[in-house]
Amino acid sequence: MSKHRPFLIVISAPSGCGKTTILQSLIDILDGLSFSVSHTTRKPRAGEITGNDYHFVDLETFHQMQGNGEFVESAIVHSNYYGTSFAGIDKLLKNGLDVILDIDIQGMRHLKESDRFELVTIFILPPSLNELENRLRQRNTDSDSVILKRIKNAAHEIKFARDYDYNIVNNNIELAVDSVASIVKSERLRSSRLIDI
Amino acid sequence: MSKHRPFLIVISAPSGCGKTTILQSLIDILDGLSFSVSHTTRKPRAGEITGNDYHFVDLETFHQMQGNGEFVESAIVHSNYYGTSFAGIDKLLKNGLDVILDIDIQGMRHLKESDRFELVTIFILPPSLNELENRLRQRNTDSDSVILKRIKNAAHEIKFARDYDYNIVNNNIELAVDSVASIVKSERLRSSRLIDI
Repeated sequence: MSKHRPFLIVISAPSGCGKTTILQSLIDILDGLSFSVSHTTRKPRAGEITGNDYHFVDLETFHQMQGNGEFVESAIVHSNYYGTSFAGIDKLLKNGLDVILDIDIQGMRHLKESDRFELVTIFILPPSLNELENRLRQRNTDSDSVILKRIKNAAHEIKFARDYDYNIVNNNIELAVDSVASIVKSERLRSSRLIDI
Repeated sequence: MSKHRPFLIVISAPSGCGKTTILQSLIDILDGLSFSVSHTTRKPRAGEITGNDYHFVDLETFHQMQGNGEFVESAIVHSNYYGTSFAGIDKLLKNGLDVILDIDIQGMRHLKESDRFELVTIFILPPSLNELENRLRQRNTDSDSVILKRIKNAAHEIKFARDYDYNIVNNNIELAVDSVASIVKSERLRSSRLIDI
């Protein structure tokens, strides 16, 4: 098999677009892929494990890391801090893995500006805002006011989908997973990335 | 489903790299895709049908079309003429189909220079020149001197693989088909090509 220079896959999506499910399935079906695990001050949801889903840290630790410039990006989303460390991504790429980063639009922009990694950017869209609201209500984890805030955020975020290389409308979870997998597989075949041909 | 502006997929490969098999499988598994059928003065091989595999024409007809400027590209390969008409591609694209074009390196260059179509270019490589020779001998359609000529051409053509967007090494036919399918699927998701999001 031809070797390629590993790259960083940035995926953004409004809450409720199926991003978490898509990414978990992707890791299951594709080799050579690793999540970058973010730090967060958000409280773990049921079943979430620190170091696996997120590094759950307190606010003091988070601010210390911020002060040290350890984060690619850090942002407040729904009153919680999220951050991703440069060192963690570098290490995975140097180990020959393509890295998946689940970050928001601001994070994607900071990454582009840093020009530190080779990026492939994907934005996942809901079929419609109505359908998004249905999904958020079915998830049954958020209050009405949080749901309304998420819908409002989504309506805003969707405007920036075109700033990403690829857009996927998640009408169907299997198709959406296949779409992301196709993007990763094809980006691995880019002649500009191949090493030993 | 989101609509995308149809595009032209250009695939080149040295003889014996499995291109024909790959393209036939691709058409079977992906919707919305159509071959552009080339004109040729080459004699049909067993089982080949005019209008399906090629438009088999005599030399006089071919030269007439050339004179009328009807071809995107025309080239002599192994003493036979091959040509692809602009009109045929335009028609398929306007019908909303992504078009697959099986042409050589010169053809790809002429297409790029014409700047008439949105292109996605793929070069298929053999695992090695030794393996390519084995395949050509197994195919049992060519004389020793033709096989040697094909190997020599392949060694030359492979140098230009990097001029294509994507490179696929055909070690395994199923994987190669999946690779081409992934490229087409992901190119359909490019935000720059999407119409109705």
